[in-house]
Amino acid sequence: MAAYRLDDLAQYLDATLLGDGDYPIAGLATLQSAQSRQLSFLANPVYRKYLSQSRAGAVILRADVADEFPGNRLLLDNPYLGYARVSALFDCAPAVATGIHPSAQVAAGASVDASACIGAQAVVEDNVEIGANVQIGAGCYIGEDSVIGAGTRLYAGVSIYHGVSLGNGCIIHSGAVIGSDGFGIVPAGPEMPGWVKIHQLGGVEVGADVEIGANTTIDRGALDNTVISRGVKLDNQVHIAHNVRIGENTAVAGCVGIAGSTTIGANCTIAGAAGIIGHLYIADNVHITAMTLVTKSIREPGSYSSGTPLAATREWRRNAVRFGQLEKIATRLKRLEQQ
Amino acid sequence: MAAYRLDDLAQYLDATLLGDGDYPIAGLATLQSAQSRQLSFLANPVYRKYLSQSRAGAVILRADVADEFPGNRLLLDNPYLGYARVSALFDCAPAVATGIHPSAQVAAGASVDASACIGAQAVVEDNVEIGANVQIGAGCYIGEDSVIGAGTRLYAGVSIYHGVSLGNGCIIHSGAVIGSDGFGIVPAGPEMPGWVKIHQLGGVEVGADVEIGANTTIDRGALDNTVISRGVKLDNQVHIAHNVRIGENTAVAGCVGIAGSTTIGANCTIAGAAGIIGHLYIADNVHITAMTLVTKSIREPGSYSSGTPLAATREWRRNAVRFGQLEKIATRLKRLEQQ
Amino acid sequence: MAAYRLDDLAQYLDATLLGDGDYPIAGLATLQSAQSRQLSFLANPVYRKYLSQSRAGAVILRADVADEFPGNRLLLDNPYLGYARVSALFDCAPAVATGIHPSAQVAAGASVDASACIGAQAVVEDNVEIGANVQIGAGCYIGEDSVIGAGTRLYAGVSIYHGVSLGNGCIIHSGAVIGSDGFGIVPAGPEMPGWVKIHQLGGVEVGADVEIGANTTIDRGALDNTVISRGVKLDNQVHIAHNVRIGENTAVAGCVGIAGSTTIGANCTIAGAAGIIGHLYIADNVHITAMTLVTKSIREPGSYSSGTPLAATREWRRNAVRFGQLEKIATRLKRLEQQ
Repeated sequence: MAAYRLDDLAQYLDATLLGDGDYPIAGLATLQSAQSRQLSFLANPVYRKYLSQSRAGAVILRADVADEFPGNRLLLDNPYLGYARVSALFDCAPAVATGIHPSAQVAAGASVDASACIGAQAVVEDNVEIGANVQIGAGCYIGEDSVIGAGTRLYAGVSIYHGVSLGNGCIIHSGAVIGSDGFGIVPAGPEMPGWVKIHQLGGVEVGADVEIGANTTIDRGALDNTVISRGVKLDNQVHIAHNVRIGENTAVAGCVGIAGSTTIGANCTIAGAAGIIGHLYIADNVHITAMTLVTKSIREPGSYSSGTPLAATREWRRNAVRFGQLEKIATRLKRLEQQ
Repeated sequence: MAAYRLDDLAQYLDATLLGDGDYPIAGLATLQSAQSRQLSFLANPVYRKYLSQSRAGAVILRADVADEFPGNRLLLDNPYLGYARVSALFDCAPAVATGIHPSAQVAAGASVDASACIGAQAVVEDNVEIGANVQIGAGCYIGEDSVIGAGTRLYAGVSIYHGVSLGNGCIIHSGAVIGSDGFGIVPAGPEMPGWVKIHQLGGVEVGADVEIGANTTIDRGALDNTVISRGVKLDNQVHIAHNVRIGENTAVAGCVGIAGSTTIGANCTIAGAAGIIGHLYIADNVHITAMTLVTKSIREPGSYSSGTPLAATREWRRNAVRFGQLEKIATRLKRLEQQ
Repeated sequence: MAAYRLDDLAQYLDATLLGDGDYPIAGLATLQSAQSRQLSFLANPVYRKYLSQSRAGAVILRADVADEFPGNRLLLDNPYLGYARVSALFDCAPAVATGIHPSAQVAAGASVDASACIGAQAVVEDNVEIGANVQIGAGCYIGEDSVIGAGTRLYAGVSIYHGVSLGNGCIIHSGAVIGSDGFGIVPAGPEMPGWVKIHQLGGVEVGADVEIGANTTIDRGALDNTVISRGVKLDNQVHIAHNVRIGENTAVAGCVGIAGSTTIGANCTIAGAAGIIGHLYIADNVHITAMTLVTKSIREPGSYSSGTPLAATREWRRNAVRFGQLEKIATRLKRLEQQ
C-alpha cells in the first residue's frame, strides 16, 4: 500500500500539523494497536487514556488535548470526521468486479456502459441500463427495465427485481433484495377463507449516494413507487415495506422494520431494531431510540422512545407483574386521594 | 398493455357500472395520481377527500359515496377487494424465468415438467421434482429430494435445502431460505464446555398458495417436519424455527420471529416485529399487535399485546425509571391503604 | 440407511442397555411417531405421558422412569444429550458439494485443498485458501484473501467478503453474509448535509466449530477485526455489527441484533429478538431473555430482561396508558405519604 506524507495528509484534511511533514503514514489503526507507520485518532473521550502511550506515528486530535501526545499530531476540530475522510485513502478492498466475466449472463437488450464491470455468474435481464463505472458483484441479479446509476457498486449476491431504479454512487451489500412484492393481501370475503393478493404494480426509486446493508429488503410499491431519497443510509437486515418514503440523509440502523405507506422525513436517525407501523408521518430531524415501536405520527423533531429498562430478570418479573396491575393501582391511588 | 372495457371489468368484478361501458381502462392508480385511462378505488376513508377531484377514468367505490365522483363508477360493497382482484389483470411483471436457461445446472436425476422454466445460473439437484408451469428464478438452488408444486414461482436467489416440499401456486421471494438447520444444540456436559449439535433430520412442508417474503427463513424440523399450511402468507424477514406449525391462511408481517415447536392456529394475523417463544400453542383467529412478545399459550381468539406507548424520550425516561420501582410503589400503596 | 445394533448404540453412548442388544435401529423419532425400528428419547417431562404407549423400538431415558416403558431402553443421566449424539449417526443429508463443479469459477491464485468440494455456480476469488474437506455450496461467493478452515461447510448461497477467516469445522447456512461493511458514517458537518462514510478496513475472524444461521450477517471491523470465538452458535437472521467480539461457546438465538464494538463474554445465551446496543461489555455466563433490550454493560452473571407481559390488547392498553403516567403516579403517592 502506498504511504502518504503527513504534510499531504494535513493538506487533504485541512488540519494543522505539529511534527514532521515528511513522516510516512501507511495505514490507520486505533490508539491501542497503532504501530509507528500508522495514523490514529482521538474522538471518543473514553479512549483518551490510551493517548499518551500510543505508538502511533501520528494522531488526529483536537487542539485542547494536543499536549497529551508527544509525537506527530494533526489538529482538527472534528477528529472523527477527519478519520472518516482519511479512511477512504487507506481502503484497499478489491474491486467488486473487474471487466465482464465470461460466466455472466447479460441479455442482448441490456445497455451496459463500456466502463461497467459485471462479476461471475451475474444475470442482467433485458432492457436494463447500467451506467458508467458500475460494479455488479458475482451472482447478482438485475431484473428487466431496471436502471443502475453511474458509479454504483453491488456486492455479490444482490437481487434487484424488475423496474427498480438506483441512483449514482450507491453501495448495495450482499443479500440485499430490492423490488420484491409488498405484502398486499385482502381477506377473500366474509364467507370465503383466505386472502386475495394485491399485485404490486409500482417500483422502487433509490436516490444517489444511498448505502443499503447486507440482507436488507425494500419492497416495490403497490401502485406508486417506494422511495429512498438521496443520501439515505440503511444498515443490515432493515425491512422497508411498500410505498414507504424516506427523506434525504436519514440513517436507519440494523434490524429496523418500517411498515407500508409510512413517510419518514429527512435527516432522521432510527436506532437499531426499532419498528414503525404503517401509514404514519415522521417529521424531519426525528431520532428514534433502539427497539422503540412507533405507533403514531411524529410531527415535532426530537427523540422518541418506548420500552422498559433492563433489569435482573427476577427483579424485572416483579415489576412486570405490577405493570399488568397499573390500571388498578391508579384506581386505588385515586380512591385514597379522595378519602 | 391491453386495455379493458368497463363493461368487462364490471362483469369480472360483479360490480354495478354507472357510466360508459365502452370506456377503455389501461391501468390502475391512486385517486391522486390516476390519469384518464386509469381505474382507481376508494377503500380507506382517509382518501375520500381526493375523490371529487380525481382525474381517474373510473373509480371503484361503495354506493353510499357514489355521488361524490362525477365520472364512471364501479359500485362494490368491498372496493378494496375489487382493487385486489383487478390488480391481477394489470400486472405486467415479466415472467420469473422462460424456458430452461443453458447456464442452469439441472441434475440428470431431477424430474422437471416440460412446461417448467428454470432461470440462468440456477441449480437443481438430484431427485428433485418440479411440477407444471413452475418458474425457478435465476440463481436459485433446489436441494435433493425436494418437490416444487405446479405453478409455484421462485424469484431469483431462493435457497431450498434438501427434503423440502412446496405446494402448488406458491410465490417465494428472493433471498428466502427454506430447510436450513433448526437451532438445536445441547450443552456438552457439566464438565465440558460447548455444545453438541442436534442434527436436524426432519424436513419442511409448505402447503398450496403460500407466499413467502424476501429473506424469510424457515428451518427444517429436528425429527418431524416444520409445517406451513395452505394459504399462509409470510412477509419479508420472518424467521420460522424448527417444528413450528402454522395453520391455514394465517398472515405474518415482516420481521416476526417464531421459536421452535410453537403451533399457531388458522386465520391468525401476526403484526410486524412480534416475537413468539417456543413450545407454545396459539389458537385460531388470534391477532398479535406489532412488536409484542408472546410468552405463553393463547387459547382464546382475540387481540394480544405487550410493550409500552411511544413518548418523547425525556418523558419516557422518567416513566421508565418508575417502571423499575413498580413493586415498591405497589408496596407503598398497600401500606397507605392499610393505615 | 444403515441400521445400528442396540449394543453398539449403548457402547457409543456409554449407556446401560435394558433389552435386546441385537435389536436393529434404523432411525430416530419422537415418542408419538416412532415406529418399531426407530429409537426415541424422553428428555422434556411434558412428553412423559407418551412414554408407555410409544411404539418405539427403543427409548433413551433416565433410570428413574425406566419402569414406564416396557420395551428396549438405553439408560442415561442426560437423555437429551444422548439424543443429540445419536442424531449425528442418523443424519443422511446429502453433502453440500461433491468434487469441483465445472460451472464453479475458481481463480487461478486460489489455493484449494485436493479434498475440498465446490458446488455449481460458486465463485472463489484470488488468494483464497480452502482447507481439507471443505464443502462450498452452490452459488457461494468467497472474496479475495479469505481463508476457509478444514472441514467447514458452506450451504448454498453464502457470501463471504474479502479478508474473512473461518476456522475449522464451521457450518454456515444459506444466505449468511460475512464481512460486509460495518455501518460507519459521520455527519459531514454542521453546515453540510449528509454523511461521510468510514471505510471499513478491518476483517472478520470466526473461530473453529462455529455455526452461523441462515441470513445472518456479520460485518467486518472498522479498523480491528470483528471476532466470533470458537464454539459460538448463531441462529438465523442474527445481526452482528462491526467490531463486536463474542466469547467462546456463546449461543445467540434468531433475530438478535448486536450493535458495534460491544464485547460479549463466553458461555452466554441470548434469546430470540434481543437487542444489545453498542460499546457495551457483557460478562461471561449472562442470559438475556427474549426481546430484551440491553442498554448498559452487565458485569455480573445471571439473567436479564426488559419489556412488559403479554395481555389482551384491551387490558394492555389501559395499563400502557398508565405507564405514561407513572412519574405522576409516583409523585401523587409521595404526596399522600407525606400527609
